[in-house]
Amino acid sequence: MRIGMLIIGSELLQGKQLEANLHFLGGFLRTYHQEVTAAQIVSDKKSLIQEALKSLYQNVDLVVVCGGLGPTPDDITKSELANFFNKPIRYSQSAEEVARENYQRMGKVYPDQHTYSQLPEGFTPLSNNAGFAPGLWFQDGTHTLIALPGVPREFRQMLEDHLPRLVQLQNTQRLNLVTVRTKGIPEEKIFQDLCPSLWSELEKFGEVSSLPQLMGVDVGVKTTSSPEIIYQMIARTALAPYVWSYGMKSLEEKIIELAAEKKMTFGFAESCTAGLCAHRITNVSGASQVFWGSVVSYDNTVKKNLLKVKPQTLLDHGAVSLECAAEMALGAREALGVDVAISLTGIAGPGGGSIQKPVGTVCIAVATSGGHQTKILNFKGDRENLKLRFSQAGLYLLWETLSEMTCA
Amino acid sequence: MRIGMLIIGSELLQGKQLEANLHFLGGFLRTYHQEVTAAQIVSDKKSLIQEALKSLYQNVDLVVVCGGLGPTPDDITKSELANFFNKPIRYSQSAEEVARENYQRMGKVYPDQHTYSQLPEGFTPLSNNAGFAPGLWFQDGTHTLIALPGVPREFRQMLEDHLPRLVQLQNTQRLNLVTVRTKGIPEEKIFQDLCPSLWSELEKFGEVSSLPQLMGVDVGVKTTSSPEIIYQMIARTALAPYVWSYGMKSLEEKIIELAAEKKMTFGFAESCTAGLCAHRITNVSGASQVFWGSVVSYDNTVKKNLLKVKPQTLLDHGAVSLECAAEMALGAREALGVDVAISLTGIAGPGGGSIQKPVGTVCIAVATSGGHQTKILNFKGDRENLKLRFSQAGLYLLWETLSEMTCA
Repeated sequence: MRIGMLIIGSELLQGKQLEANLHFLGGFLRTYHQEVTAAQIVSDKKSLIQEALKSLYQNVDLVVVCGGLGPTPDDITKSELANFFNKPIRYSQSAEEVARENYQRMGKVYPDQHTYSQLPEGFTPLSNNAGFAPGLWFQDGTHTLIALPGVPREFRQMLEDHLPRLVQLQNTQRLNLVTVRTKGIPEEKIFQDLCPSLWSELEKFGEVSSLPQLMGVDVGVKTTSSPEIIYQMIARTALAPYVWSYGMKSLEEKIIELAAEKKMTFGFAESCTAGLCAHRITNVSGASQVFWGSVVSYDNTVKKNLLKVKPQTLLDHGAVSLECAAEMALGAREALGVDVAISLTGIAGPGGGSIQKPVGTVCIAVATSGGHQTKILNFKGDRENLKLRFSQAGLYLLWETLSEMTCA
Repeated sequence: MRIGMLIIGSELLQGKQLEANLHFLGGFLRTYHQEVTAAQIVSDKKSLIQEALKSLYQNVDLVVVCGGLGPTPDDITKSELANFFNKPIRYSQSAEEVARENYQRMGKVYPDQHTYSQLPEGFTPLSNNAGFAPGLWFQDGTHTLIALPGVPREFRQMLEDHLPRLVQLQNTQRLNLVTVRTKGIPEEKIFQDLCPSLWSELEKFGEVSSLPQLMGVDVGVKTTSSPEIIYQMIARTALAPYVWSYGMKSLEEKIIELAAEKKMTFGFAESCTAGLCAHRITNVSGASQVFWGSVVSYDNTVKKNLLKVKPQTLLDHGAVSLECAAEMALGAREALGVDVAISLTGIAGPGGGSIQKPVGTVCIAVATSGGHQTKILNFKGDRENLKLRFSQAGLYLLWETLSEMTCA
C-alpha cells in the first residue's frame, strides 16, 4: 500500500514548531509492516494545499492529512478538502453528534452552531478521544483519505483509534524494516574496507540503507524476508564486532531490560548533561524498577555538598577532569544507594572551553561495587547536540557495564 | 523570496528518525524575515526525487535540498540533481580540494578516487565545517539550489556558513513573524467570547494564526509592520491578562534572564519529570549563572536521603501529594543551596494511576526564603507528553515566583 502524508501548518515552516507527527506515523506503520512513501508540508494557503493534495492523490492509495481542523479562521483543511473533491459543506447530524461527544468527554458544553457540525458531503466524522475537533474520513473508490488534527496528542490518539479500523493495513505486502546498529566505525570503512561485498549481499534481500546516527551507523534493509536471516548473515561478517544492537530498540530500552534482568539499580551524577540521561531513561515506561535517581550538579557547590567531591580535587584538576568524574560517580553511588552510578562532567559550550579542554570534552566515570573506571572523550557539535552525544556516551558506558556484570 | 525545502531520506518516513532540519531552517530564516513556503520529504527513490524537484522548482526561487550526499549507494542526491538539470557528472578539481580540506579538518586522510571529487557540470562545491561530504550550489537564472548533508549538525553549520553568503536574503520583502503567547484560555474563547473582533483587527496587519501550544495559545501575525504596534494593540484588549509573553522567547530563556536580573539562583527536585526541567533550562547558554542543580528523586529512598522527605509523609500521603511536594521543595532548596527551589511529583503513566490520583496528576511546590506554596494539577496525554506538560507547569511556577521577587 502506498501511503502519503499531507501536513498543513505555517508554524512548521516558520521554525515555530517541530513537526513530529510524520515520525509518529512512520513508527506506527512500521508495526503494520508499512511505510510512508512521501510527505508534504505546506502553509495554511489554499493554492498550496490544493496542489499538494493533487500530487499526493496521484501517487498514493492512502492520504493522511494532519492539521488545520481547529475552530479559528486559519483552519481551512475542511473547506479545502471539500473544494478538492468538489463536495458541498453541509450541516451533518453525525458530525454534530461526534463533536458533542468530544466536548462531553472533555467536560465542556458544545456551543450551538459550531463549524464542527458541518461536513463535506460523503465524508464521515471521526471521534476524538483527546480533544474537541472531529477528524474526517473519505473513501473514494480505491483511495482513502483521513484528516486528523495536528496537535500531536490528538493526532496520535486518533491514528491509533481509527486507522487500523478503517484501512486494511495488513492486506498488502508486508515489509520488514530490518536494522542493525553499529558503533566505532564510519560508514565508508564499513562498505569499502571492512565488508566490500556487504552492500550487494544485503541487496539480495531488498533495499539497503546506511544511516549515520548519534553514536554510529545504522545499517538497514527493507525486505519481505524475516529479520533473523539478515541478522544471522551480518553476524557472520567482519561487521559483527561493531554491532551493538540487532534490531531497532533504543539504548534506553536495552539498559532497562538488562538492569531488570540482572536485578541491578542505577543512577547518575550529571553536570554537563544536566538531567538528560535521567530524562531519556525515564521516557521508557517501567524505568522506576531499576532507575533510582540522578544528582544534577551543575554548580560546584552541589558537587561538593551532595556528591562529596573534594574541594582540593576541584582546585587541582577542575570540574571537568577524570578525578572529579570519579569522585562524582562514587559519590552518586553512595548518595543514591544504587548498584551502578555513571557520572558526566564536560563542556557543552559555546563558552567555557580552553586549549587543553576544548568545548566538546567530557569526562565520564562509572562506579560499581567492584570499583570505578573513567574515560575522557571529545565530540564536535553545538550545545544541544553535545549534550545529546555526551548522554549517549554515558548511557553506552552504563549498558557496557551492566552487560559485564553478574546478577545481584 | 519564495523558499522551498526538499528533504531526502527513507529513514524520516519510516519512523526511524525525527526530521529536525526544516524546523532549524525555519528558525534561521525567521532572523532574515523570511519563511519556508513548502517542504517535501521523500524516500531515496529516483522518481520521487525528480517529481518533488519539479514541483518545488516551479513554485519557489530558492530550493534547499537536504540529505543523500554521503558516500554509500543509497546516497543519490547528487546524481538525481545532475539528471534533473541534465548535466553530466565529472571529476572536479575544486570539489576534490573542498573534500580534501573537509577530511583534513576532521583529522582524516582523503581517499583517492572518492565520489566527493565528482560534481555535476556547472555546480559549485561547498565546504563542510562539521563533516566530510561537500555541499552543492547551483545558480540557474533567477533560481538557486543549495544541497546540504542531512546530518543535523552538518546541515546547521553549512546553512550558517553558506546561505547568507550565497543568497540575498535581505533583498526581498521583510516579513515579521509576530507572536503573542497566552495561557489559561482556549482558542475558541479568545476569538468568540473574549475578543470577537480581534481576528479581523489583526488581519489588517497581515496573515493571522492561532496555534494551541503546550501551555496555551500562541496568536501570530505575519506582517510587514513592526511587532511593537501589534503588541501595543493586543495589550489594550481583554486578552492582555492572559498574555505571558510578547514575542517568541521560550519560557526557559525568560526564566534565565529574569533570575540573572534579580540575582537569584534556583534548582529543582524532580520526580516525575526526572531531569527534564534541568535539561530544558540548561539548553540555554548562560544557565550556569543562575541554575545550580536538580535532585532527580525517582525512587522514594532518594526523596528521603537527599531531600529529607519524612518517611511518615510518604506513608500517610504517598509520594504524589502536596505534602511530599512541599518537603521536596524545602529539601531541595536546602540541599542545593539555592534561593528558589521547585519540586514536581506526579504520575506520567501509563501505570501507577488510581481513581483519586489518575495518570496526569502532578503536585508542584515552590520554596523561597519567604516560605513555600503548593499546587495540584491534572493533564491528559501519553508519558512523554505528560512529562513535558509537567515540566512546563513547573517552569511556569518558577517564572511567576521570580517575577514577584525583589532583587537578592
